[in-house]
Amino acid sequence: MEKIYLDYAATTPVDEKVEKAMRPYFSASFGNAGSLHSFGRDAVTAIDSARDAVAQKIGADFRDVIFTGSATEANNLALRGIIKALGFRQLGAGRLEPSGLAPKILVSSIEHESVLETARDLSAGGVEVVVLPVDGKGFVDLEKLESSLDERTVLVSVMYANNEIGTIQPVAEISKIIKKFDYKILFHTDAVQAFQYLDCNVNMLGVDFLTLSAHKIYGPKGVGALFARNTDSTPLNPVITGGGQEFGLRSGTENVPSIVGFAKTVEITAEAREKEKKRVGKLRGHFWRELKKIYPAVEINGIIDGNSTLPNILNICFPGYRAEELLIKFDEAGIAVSAGSACQSRSAKSSHVLQALGFSEERARSSVRFSFGRLTEEREIKEALKLAAGILKK
Amino acid sequence: MEKIYLDYAATTPVDEKVEKAMRPYFSASFGNAGSLHSFGRDAVTAIDSARDAVAQKIGADFRDVIFTGSATEANNLALRGIIKALGFRQLGAGRLEPSGLAPKILVSSIEHESVLETARDLSAGGVEVVVLPVDGKGFVDLEKLESSLDERTVLVSVMYANNEIGTIQPVAEISKIIKKFDYKILFHTDAVQAFQYLDCNVNMLGVDFLTLSAHKIYGPKGVGALFARNTDSTPLNPVITGGGQEFGLRSGTENVPSIVGFAKTVEITAEAREKEKKRVGKLRGHFWRELKKIYPAVEINGIIDGNSTLPNILNICFPGYRAEELLIKFDEAGIAVSAGSACQSRSAKSSHVLQALGFSEERARSSVRFSFGRLTEEREIKEALKLAAGILKK
Repeated sequence: MEKIYLDYAATTPVDEKVEKAMRPYFSASFGNAGSLHSFGRDAVTAIDSARDAVAQKIGADFRDVIFTGSATEANNLALRGIIKALGFRQLGAGRLEPSGLAPKILVSSIEHESVLETARDLSAGGVEVVVLPVDGKGFVDLEKLESSLDERTVLVSVMYANNEIGTIQPVAEISKIIKKFDYKILFHTDAVQAFQYLDCNVNMLGVDFLTLSAHKIYGPKGVGALFARNTDSTPLNPVITGGGQEFGLRSGTENVPSIVGFAKTVEITAEAREKEKKRVGKLRGHFWRELKKIYPAVEINGIIDGNSTLPNILNICFPGYRAEELLIKFDEAGIAVSAGSACQSRSAKSSHVLQALGFSEERARSSVRFSFGRLTEEREIKEALKLAAGILKK
Repeated sequence: MEKIYLDYAATTPVDEKVEKAMRPYFSASFGNAGSLHSFGRDAVTAIDSARDAVAQKIGADFRDVIFTGSATEANNLALRGIIKALGFRQLGAGRLEPSGLAPKILVSSIEHESVLETARDLSAGGVEVVVLPVDGKGFVDLEKLESSLDERTVLVSVMYANNEIGTIQPVAEISKIIKKFDYKILFHTDAVQAFQYLDCNVNMLGVDFLTLSAHKIYGPKGVGALFARNTDSTPLNPVITGGGQEFGLRSGTENVPSIVGFAKTVEITAEAREKEKKRVGKLRGHFWRELKKIYPAVEINGIIDGNSTLPNILNICFPGYRAEELLIKFDEAGIAVSAGSACQSRSAKSSHVLQALGFSEERARSSVRFSFGRLTEEREIKEALKLAAGILKK
């Protein structure tokens, strides 16, 4: 049975060119970048060049790109690192002010778990966390954002494009609102899903921190990056301490092959961006139109709009069906789709994103995410529709 | 020029069989282990089987092996995770008791930076840290350890074998001292360097936590593991939060190829252990005897003893030379060696390990670490000695 993978938002296969770029660093050039000899210098050269490539593609300084073990870690570094640094600064002993002067952070209600759970954890430690609501299409309430800013606010974290529904936030506009209130309030965006289709220039976006992942863009799992503007002056403490790698902000022997692969995939992805956006957007449009013919009751969660959503994500409610039931039937037919994010799939909770959009538990539990990718062909879309017709009419 | 790598304690090339085991998981079986469809299930199966393999080789329960992005992260998880969990338990708000009831941890003075720096960081947050001295050979002062235990002590961290001088600590004996005082005091050992040559059965050792790394044993960089005994009941909070992977103790999409490679290299390494120990020990003995003939003033840092030190590490003082000078000359001759650990190489600090042994700054600055490995051949040792003779007599 031929398999049709329509879950590219969960993870992607490693591009052959990326794997080829990584290969020499497993056993031929295997040195530790901390070593002073030629093996070590080769590793440093490879990492420097990878850092430079990533920095260039997001308009950042070389010095402001920190490689991590995942985007989740990068999000943790942004949130925890800032709070920790400010804690140290304010009290000189690593503790947060326990009084009413606790720092405040704002996060949107549709952030990835790595932001939301980390915010919750910080909140248990005394940080005030404001969760910003979104409207029925998934856009953050900018008025609420603006009115929540105050002198205690140290950080705002709003993702660039959502992983479940694809909604693109007006990041540059949000930056203006924040910086107009107080330029010292730091602004972080999780651009993990956005990078494949959207320009992630950090100056255009006006962000202080930006998170990237390799495995969502045809690179290896186990590597991510945090852009941190002016790391010399911006308050940021490491979450993982030790040998002081990554400018002292992320310790651990540098994962040379994965860093090299990450840079390679960032370059390939940025170059293919515009063309892929059009191609995938067309496939998505076709799939949606035909699906409506097959099962007219379907409803879109969020919106379909070339400018306000990612071109590859379709989050659809199938009234009368349970998502699990559909996932299993699709899987048996060889089609891989998901309900919500991969991180949540094995938990009993229904999607926090769909709930944030104001949908009922029932609607959330009847919704399936289709996500297309670089390897998705028209032929697969047609085949998937044919199989969906068989499943949905039974 | 043929290169001779004598820095296996810094990092190792990935074994061909390990790389082969990893390969299918880059693009053929690339699923996200969080996904419910067949791609996801394949990833889960691969991770489960890897976890089982690692658990078996250290005598642990399947459920007690947590994969991380590095051994540094595993050490951070052990130290920070325990303090965080106890903080929550004691005060219910994520804060440590600021009074005299602050928790206390004991660490040896020759731990890896990922333990020492993390302990320092926790100390800035209010934890009392006792740094246990070692004797001139590098053995932890057990009397001091015993007398430092008290009702506030929550954790002791003593590495199994040292990365700079190879000294093996009597871990099982230390466990008995700790558990006799109070079985609730947790005991962590960093077994990153030990695993290649020593049995790391967690029950034989009597440890609650044990750290492993893949890239020191011919596996990939970017993956480590923490054994945590009875994770259901032992106090341990995650350092990196998000999707709740690794039983909620380490979030982030699972790095399937690297986890698979890690397990493969753990199996190969454990099987080759006894044979390699003898083979490498013989090479080291030969190298040391011949080096003394070439430059009779050489002195060993620590001891050479088949039972009390790793068979592959030789840390040698070359009176009259600066280590940097020798490293460069050796490097020019094609021989890769190091001064201290790779993590410290690029800093101006001299080795904290050699200082802990009571050696002068001058002696530390004249010392070079040679470390042999699975690919080291007798022919290379002979060639290295020939080149060393040319360098040292000039």
